[in-house]
Amino acid sequence: MLIIVTYDVSTETPAGRRRLRRVARICEGMGQRVQKSVFECQVNEMQYEQLERALLAEIDEQEDSLRLYRITETAQLRVRQYGTYRSVDYEGPLIA
Amino acid sequence: MLIIVTYDVSTETPAGRRRLRRVARICEGMGQRVQKSVFECQVNEMQYEQLERALLAEIDEQEDSLRLYRITETAQLRVRQYGTYRSVDYEGPLIA
Repeated sequence: MLIIVTYDVSTETPAGRRRLRRVARICEGMGQRVQKSVFECQVNEMQYEQLERALLAEIDEQEDSLRLYRITETAQLRVRQYGTYRSVDYEGPLIA
Repeated sequence: MLIIVTYDVSTETPAGRRRLRRVARICEGMGQRVQKSVFECQVNEMQYEQLERALLAEIDEQEDSLRLYRITETAQLRVRQYGTYRSVDYEGPLIA
């Protein structure tokens, strides 16, 4: 399944910027960055739990907002994207 | 269905901040703001098309990134939320 991770943190403090970098690193290990604070992660149920645990260990729940959306729509239906970044469909046919 | 709108724009220019305000206004008319640049909009197919058209009329595709995710998961499964903001489930039982 595809998980959309969205993250809101004030990057005005060094601590906030550090948290954002760490969150980004975790997400990039499991997917792709599609906006500054939005990541698309193709995971199975176990990876989803791992991802969530890793993120919760980094964020500050008093300061930040973290949301994980589970998307089960087909590749054609799930996202409409415009502008400066287009994501790669890792489920699509691969050219060897 | 639930549409997640995510929007990335440089707010360093007055024009960018204006675009962000306009995008926010459009989305708030159809849903709720859950992060600085993330909105949850409960819409039907026609409203989805209207929303998309209205947003495309505002954004600058050379500068911004706009993504619309279609979520059909049940309320229990579709989002896990942590931190500073919790969204309202408009599909849930209302207390009159």
